[in-house]
Amino acid sequence: MKKPKILVIHGPNLNMLGKREPEIYGSMTLDEINKGLKELGDQLNLEVETFQSNHEGAIVDKIQKAFGKCRSVIINPAAYTHTSIAIRDALLLLDVPIIEIHLSNIYKREVFRHKSFVSDIAAAQLTGFGHMGYKMALKAVAEIINHAAP
Amino acid sequence: MKKPKILVIHGPNLNMLGKREPEIYGSMTLDEINKGLKELGDQLNLEVETFQSNHEGAIVDKIQKAFGKCRSVIINPAAYTHTSIAIRDALLLLDVPIIEIHLSNIYKREVFRHKSFVSDIAAAQLTGFGHMGYKMALKAVAEIINHAAP
Amino acid sequence: MKKPKILVIHGPNLNMLGKREPEIYGSMTLDEINKGLKELGDQLNLEVETFQSNHEGAIVDKIQKAFGKCRSVIINPAAYTHTSIAIRDALLLLDVPIIEIHLSNIYKREVFRHKSFVSDIAAAQLTGFGHMGYKMALKAVAEIINHAAP
Amino acid sequence: MKKPKILVIHGPNLNMLGKREPEIYGSMTLDEINKGLKELGDQLNLEVETFQSNHEGAIVDKIQKAFGKCRSVIINPAAYTHTSIAIRDALLLLDVPIIEIHLSNIYKREVFRHKSFVSDIAAAQLTGFGHMGYKMALKAVAEIINHAAP
Amino acid sequence: MKKPKILVIHGPNLNMLGKREPEIYGSMTLDEINKGLKELGDQLNLEVETFQSNHEGAIVDKIQKAFGKCRSVIINPAAYTHTSIAIRDALLLLDVPIIEIHLSNIYKREVFRHKSFVSDIAAAQLTGFGHMGYKMALKAVAEIINHAAP
Amino acid sequence: MKKPKILVIHGPNLNMLGKREPEIYGSMTLDEINKGLKELGDQLNLEVETFQSNHEGAIVDKIQKAFGKCRSVIINPAAYTHTSIAIRDALLLLDVPIIEIHLSNIYKREVFRHKSFVSDIAAAQLTGFGHMGYKMALKAVAEIINHAAP
Amino acid sequence: MKKPKILVIHGPNLNMLGKREPEIYGSMTLDEINKGLKELGDQLNLEVETFQSNHEGAIVDKIQKAFGKCRSVIINPAAYTHTSIAIRDALLLLDVPIIEIHLSNIYKREVFRHKSFVSDIAAAQLTGFGHMGYKMALKAVAEIINHAAP
Amino acid sequence: MKKPKILVIHGPNLNMLGKREPEIYGSMTLDEINKGLKELGDQLNLEVETFQSNHEGAIVDKIQKAFGKCRSVIINPAAYTHTSIAIRDALLLLDVPIIEIHLSNIYKREVFRHKSFVSDIAAAQLTGFGHMGYKMALKAVAEIINHAAP
Amino acid sequence: MKKPKILVIHGPNLNMLGKREPEIYGSMTLDEINKGLKELGDQLNLEVETFQSNHEGAIVDKIQKAFGKCRSVIINPAAYTHTSIAIRDALLLLDVPIIEIHLSNIYKREVFRHKSFVSDIAAAQLTGFGHMGYKMALKAVAEIINHAAP
Amino acid sequence: MKKPKILVIHGPNLNMLGKREPEIYGSMTLDEINKGLKELGDQLNLEVETFQSNHEGAIVDKIQKAFGKCRSVIINPAAYTHTSIAIRDALLLLDVPIIEIHLSNIYKREVFRHKSFVSDIAAAQLTGFGHMGYKMALKAVAEIINHAAP
Amino acid sequence: MKKPKILVIHGPNLNMLGKREPEIYGSMTLDEINKGLKELGDQLNLEVETFQSNHEGAIVDKIQKAFGKCRSVIINPAAYTHTSIAIRDALLLLDVPIIEIHLSNIYKREVFRHKSFVSDIAAAQLTGFGHMGYKMALKAVAEIINHAAP
Amino acid sequence: MKKPKILVIHGPNLNMLGKREPEIYGSMTLDEINKGLKELGDQLNLEVETFQSNHEGAIVDKIQKAFGKCRSVIINPAAYTHTSIAIRDALLLLDVPIIEIHLSNIYKREVFRHKSFVSDIAAAQLTGFGHMGYKMALKAVAEIINHAAP
Repeated sequence: MKKPKILVIHGPNLNMLGKREPEIYGSMTLDEINKGLKELGDQLNLEVETFQSNHEGAIVDKIQKAFGKCRSVIINPAAYTHTSIAIRDALLLLDVPIIEIHLSNIYKREVFRHKSFVSDIAAAQLTGFGHMGYKMALKAVAEIINHAAP
Repeated sequence: MKKPKILVIHGPNLNMLGKREPEIYGSMTLDEINKGLKELGDQLNLEVETFQSNHEGAIVDKIQKAFGKCRSVIINPAAYTHTSIAIRDALLLLDVPIIEIHLSNIYKREVFRHKSFVSDIAAAQLTGFGHMGYKMALKAVAEIINHAAP
Repeated sequence: MKKPKILVIHGPNLNMLGKREPEIYGSMTLDEINKGLKELGDQLNLEVETFQSNHEGAIVDKIQKAFGKCRSVIINPAAYTHTSIAIRDALLLLDVPIIEIHLSNIYKREVFRHKSFVSDIAAAQLTGFGHMGYKMALKAVAEIINHAAP
Repeated sequence: MKKPKILVIHGPNLNMLGKREPEIYGSMTLDEINKGLKELGDQLNLEVETFQSNHEGAIVDKIQKAFGKCRSVIINPAAYTHTSIAIRDALLLLDVPIIEIHLSNIYKREVFRHKSFVSDIAAAQLTGFGHMGYKMALKAVAEIINHAAP
Repeated sequence: MKKPKILVIHGPNLNMLGKREPEIYGSMTLDEINKGLKELGDQLNLEVETFQSNHEGAIVDKIQKAFGKCRSVIINPAAYTHTSIAIRDALLLLDVPIIEIHLSNIYKREVFRHKSFVSDIAAAQLTGFGHMGYKMALKAVAEIINHAAP
Repeated sequence: MKKPKILVIHGPNLNMLGKREPEIYGSMTLDEINKGLKELGDQLNLEVETFQSNHEGAIVDKIQKAFGKCRSVIINPAAYTHTSIAIRDALLLLDVPIIEIHLSNIYKREVFRHKSFVSDIAAAQLTGFGHMGYKMALKAVAEIINHAAP
Repeated sequence: MKKPKILVIHGPNLNMLGKREPEIYGSMTLDEINKGLKELGDQLNLEVETFQSNHEGAIVDKIQKAFGKCRSVIINPAAYTHTSIAIRDALLLLDVPIIEIHLSNIYKREVFRHKSFVSDIAAAQLTGFGHMGYKMALKAVAEIINHAAP
Repeated sequence: MKKPKILVIHGPNLNMLGKREPEIYGSMTLDEINKGLKELGDQLNLEVETFQSNHEGAIVDKIQKAFGKCRSVIINPAAYTHTSIAIRDALLLLDVPIIEIHLSNIYKREVFRHKSFVSDIAAAQLTGFGHMGYKMALKAVAEIINHAAP
Repeated sequence: MKKPKILVIHGPNLNMLGKREPEIYGSMTLDEINKGLKELGDQLNLEVETFQSNHEGAIVDKIQKAFGKCRSVIINPAAYTHTSIAIRDALLLLDVPIIEIHLSNIYKREVFRHKSFVSDIAAAQLTGFGHMGYKMALKAVAEIINHAAP
Repeated sequence: MKKPKILVIHGPNLNMLGKREPEIYGSMTLDEINKGLKELGDQLNLEVETFQSNHEGAIVDKIQKAFGKCRSVIINPAAYTHTSIAIRDALLLLDVPIIEIHLSNIYKREVFRHKSFVSDIAAAQLTGFGHMGYKMALKAVAEIINHAAP
Repeated sequence: MKKPKILVIHGPNLNMLGKREPEIYGSMTLDEINKGLKELGDQLNLEVETFQSNHEGAIVDKIQKAFGKCRSVIINPAAYTHTSIAIRDALLLLDVPIIEIHLSNIYKREVFRHKSFVSDIAAAQLTGFGHMGYKMALKAVAEIINHAAP
Repeated sequence: MKKPKILVIHGPNLNMLGKREPEIYGSMTLDEINKGLKELGDQLNLEVETFQSNHEGAIVDKIQKAFGKCRSVIINPAAYTHTSIAIRDALLLLDVPIIEIHLSNIYKREVFRHKSFVSDIAAAQLTGFGHMGYKMALKAVAEIINHAAP
């Protein structure tokens, strides 16, 4: 039987993780995070696909392509969290649980980062756990898929 | 004599029309809508060019290329209606009537969809008529072009 | 078989159309618009009744009387668009599609004209098409009635 | 060596969990959740103390008593999330990581539930994962304590 | 010794400069502006690289690539000034002085143009000086680099 | 001795009661409500006059005519609750207790229905009791008149 | 030669002047004010027509009828000052100077009375001078008519 | 057969009724009001339980205890009307009609008293009737219980 | 018997009247206005003192000196209308009627000119009558002084 | 003769004074502050009663009990300053001067601490003087009591 | 050794103290207050300099002159509290503790008096203690100077 | 031929430049800045007049005196940027280009410094360039004067 596929999306500037401000964001790079997620996926019997882009439209394209092919989306929309209705609309197309994730606690930052266009259409949100948050989200997705209802 | 050219722009996620939520948006696909518009254009002696993109920048590029080459723009900016000043600025470059169109009635939806960055620079706006709205807009454009002033 | 009846309502000051500011509103009078609508109604096999009043209460009275007798209402509430909850409530009584129409693009005008008490209960809205808009609305109504769902 | 102590606080009305609206909140009672947390604590080598009260003052009292005695607080402040500055001030007294947790996704609910007096002083926030969220939080706390920095 | 590199970024629609509304924006094209900047750079012993895009993501990509390779960024974000947090975040990655520039005085225009997502992270802002502003900014950058602190 | 007179005013669209949405507003018509109030008035030794209009001005006229002739006004201003300062001013002319009444709970409805131009000049307000509310108000008025001060 | 005609409009509840709260509004009735204005009009060689209504629509009707027949309108819109866009639109039809007048100082009253839909289309506004204000306005109108520009 | 039980809750400071400001709140004490309600309950075949507390948490506790044991709650939340989401949440647990009551007209008082966290979840609201309001509410509850739907 | 003294205060920049923008403010200078007021004062048996300053503090000083010595103040605070609480406080010291006057209609200008710190403490306000307004105000003051109550 | 009694109330978390953040709040404990106040009370011939609670309801209870028994209340409501209308209402019951006090300058802190539900019913407010503020307040109370009116 | 110098600044209209509204502000004049402060200064071994002006600029000048010469500023900015950023900026120049003082409780007055441009840069604020407040502030300053940290 | 005259105005507290916070504002005094501007003026063939005042009125006086005598104004209104409409009005009198300048980046500072009463009437604005900004502005003025249109 085919493993359920989980799409993990990283928004703009997350490709720079580990290359800047390591005291804030840690020294782990995005590649390392993605590698860790795929390994965890193997343990959880999930296929993990990861994607990063600085382009709002490219993220919309990617989400559309997942239509009918993935069981859940874990998304850290980064700056597009607060400005992109296009990504929101694309996520609404999919009929799967969305997990919204942020590395840092967005409620400690500028006021314009407190508003998310994703949070009210997501099943759940995780903020402030650093890169650990991705694994927490993936494990939660595994439970949700197994037990049907969160 | 060359037929006047009308550019029809479809914003993000509209390429998914007919593929999702047919009870809301109908079962007509974007290709079918575009085909219908071109046929109607033939009847009205208008050349209809259609374009869809999920990329804000690609829409801006497209509008710029129409500069001096089209007589009117019919645009359904979808999610970018509410967030894109870049598209607004590109439309301002063209000195032709803009018709803004939305499939569903945006005033029945979330508050953030009530604000349009296009409406105050458009000649007119049509909202809630479903795919029929595109044809209404195209016929109106034909009249406007024939009679000069709406 | 009796023709479906469509009620067209013109709000305050629209009786002055064609008598003032022809450069903005055109030189067509309300009587001419109404005559054109009735002729178009004949072509579309619709009975068109028109009504104009400067009195909010008279418009409410008129809408109530249409209860159970008309298949759609096309309304240009003019100034009452922005101030009348009574007209909204009367329209809510009728269980037929409402088309809201404005001659000029209200989004180009004073901020207090951007808020409509009708738009979120209307099926669709048309703004900025001048008197042509009435005919567009009537044709759309004909399609909606024929095809059941907009 | 003494096990690190984690204080888990449940705000008002959470004592009714499992007794009402099981289709929304699940059929698990607060006692069962607490039991599960203690068992998980044993696995993680953490001492888990749980506390529930409908009284804002009692929650403040409890937090004060934890001063100098616990390594982290996991708190679901429920209704007091949005109204209690006293709880915020008490949490500020403690110099340990705070994890804020909500069973349902508060961003899908009334607007007044979107504002949290805890979120900007918490290390991290988890919302919408149901009772699973408590375990996720406890595991995260274990990691944070082991690795020092979240 | 290698000349310090300055990245000059032009946001959406600025590629149309000189091709529209010359009475407002002057008849100088973007190519001419860029050429002038490079010549001035030569005089000031600065390497000037210029870049224009209508794509928010492409601008983010470009800024990221400048990481560790340029001494200052002069940016006219145009429409993205008011809507792009992604560009702001990319600029924050660089640890060099940012000069924000606008051709026209944004405070004379629509209210939504008064808010900039760049201004509070820029070292300085210049608005309303037309194309002359670019040269002013470049000269200022030269001084800043020479004298270390603005 | 003449019986004290109580004026009961019903605002716009209330003449349609019982004719629409009986599952919400009940099947009782306005005539039946008025009849019930007059009978109750007889029992309470009060003369009850009832009035309904869809015209703001007509309601103002009616209130003015009651000047010096009635001991209390029970008013359900319906849509005019939220928009009519003219009715407020007319009620201020009378020096008698005003009871404001609404059939449905206005605080469960659209936000624009939460603001009343009458509530702060009324002696008391009753909302959400359905047609029963009118009788409650009339009995309260009887008590107020007998005991002078509410 | 025919005397220039001045239309004086009194809004809702002003027909009750002198009949209530004489300590605030004085004991002069509206008839006496109108009589005084006509006498003053005779002295100033102006024909004064006065009109009062509690009906917004009737005031709109009246203003429309004055189209092309009067040289100025003096209007105390009373409660409709703050709620009627219909009256504003009617006044805009006339191409004559409008003088807005209020008996009491509206800036000392409730906040909702501070906003006027007439003030920004009026030539001038007078507030707080009591009934004397009408005569002041009429004399000013005489000067304006004689000297063309205010 | 057991009589239906009605819980009457009085919020903070209402225990001081009759002991302060009798010219505003009357000279009747809370004990007298409660006694009157019990007597009326006997007449209406209802068991009336009354409760007062200055503690938000104690009111929440009390409401929880009524879960499954009472047919309706009449509540005057006093100051907690405007600040307690915890009480709102507790009331939501009960699946019985809530009647909200205030002695004085809250719309005549400070702006912060106009907002109620109870009103949109209550079946109905009564404000400004003084202690008479409690009896009105109890009688209404009796009718609602007898006739099933208000 | 001594003539009642009226203080006329002109705020900042009014000394430039007649020297700039004569098409807006007329060609009459402030000296001419003051001369006219003094002549009119003679006719009305009033002593008119005039004062202009660009200094907020100097205007406050002047008003304080009028304490107990003048019967009324006519003030055109110009820019200080919208920013000076100090002038408001000084005017409050005097126990005489204040007439606020503006040459142009401030409600046709920038939004920040719509707020006046004087209007709610003035007896009356006159706006938009040009220099004629000063004479209107002085005549009104004469009436007010003669008849005691405006 | 009995000494006038002064009630000093300390709000939530103030029992932790001296135990945390001594660099901000000083090393003085609440017991020491209270002891100092009682000694000062002896000098001023005032009986000082002190009270601290983390429970809003307990503070309300305490204030009620002081009804008729104390001459003034000095209150530092701490977090309840900004959220408790119940405490405000209890203070309103007492007919004695209230002195509001805060240790730190609340205007330097989060915006939600700038709003006080006590300040507009207090006679006076003291903020930012640290523990010295309590003694200042007590001395002021002594003066106020001796001289009757502040 | 030279005595520490304290500058006491009184804002606009405070020179009128004792000359108006003695029932509110007391009958004590500003000279008497200043005399009292100097005497108290002598007791506390402080040199007290007092200054009053109605001119914002003069107050700024005065504060600048105190630069490096005074140990603390006690300021009652009166009306300039709410409007002067210039005074704020001048106070920021001095590196000494600022005590803000108001005679009446500004939180009982108009809303525009609740905002202070000084409060968040002051060490402490005193409001509502009447002229007694000045002495309280001076004594507090003496303590602060003696004990270094407030 | 006479050299064109440029007026440079420095607002309140700028006379203290170089005397405080040199790490922020640099160690250059205002005299040195002015001297530098005059020297640069000589090079550019411009007569530079400089003026500083802490008095809003004095700045207004100065601007008025420049009427008809200067070709441009460079103004750093400092604190008056945000509060002075009088200076705005004076600048409007002059029909010359205004350059607004700020030493520090006002968009990095308190929110109340983001609003400028000058920016929308200025030709251009420069912020954050430190004292270098004055020279940049003067050079720009020279270009503007030479080339007529900026």
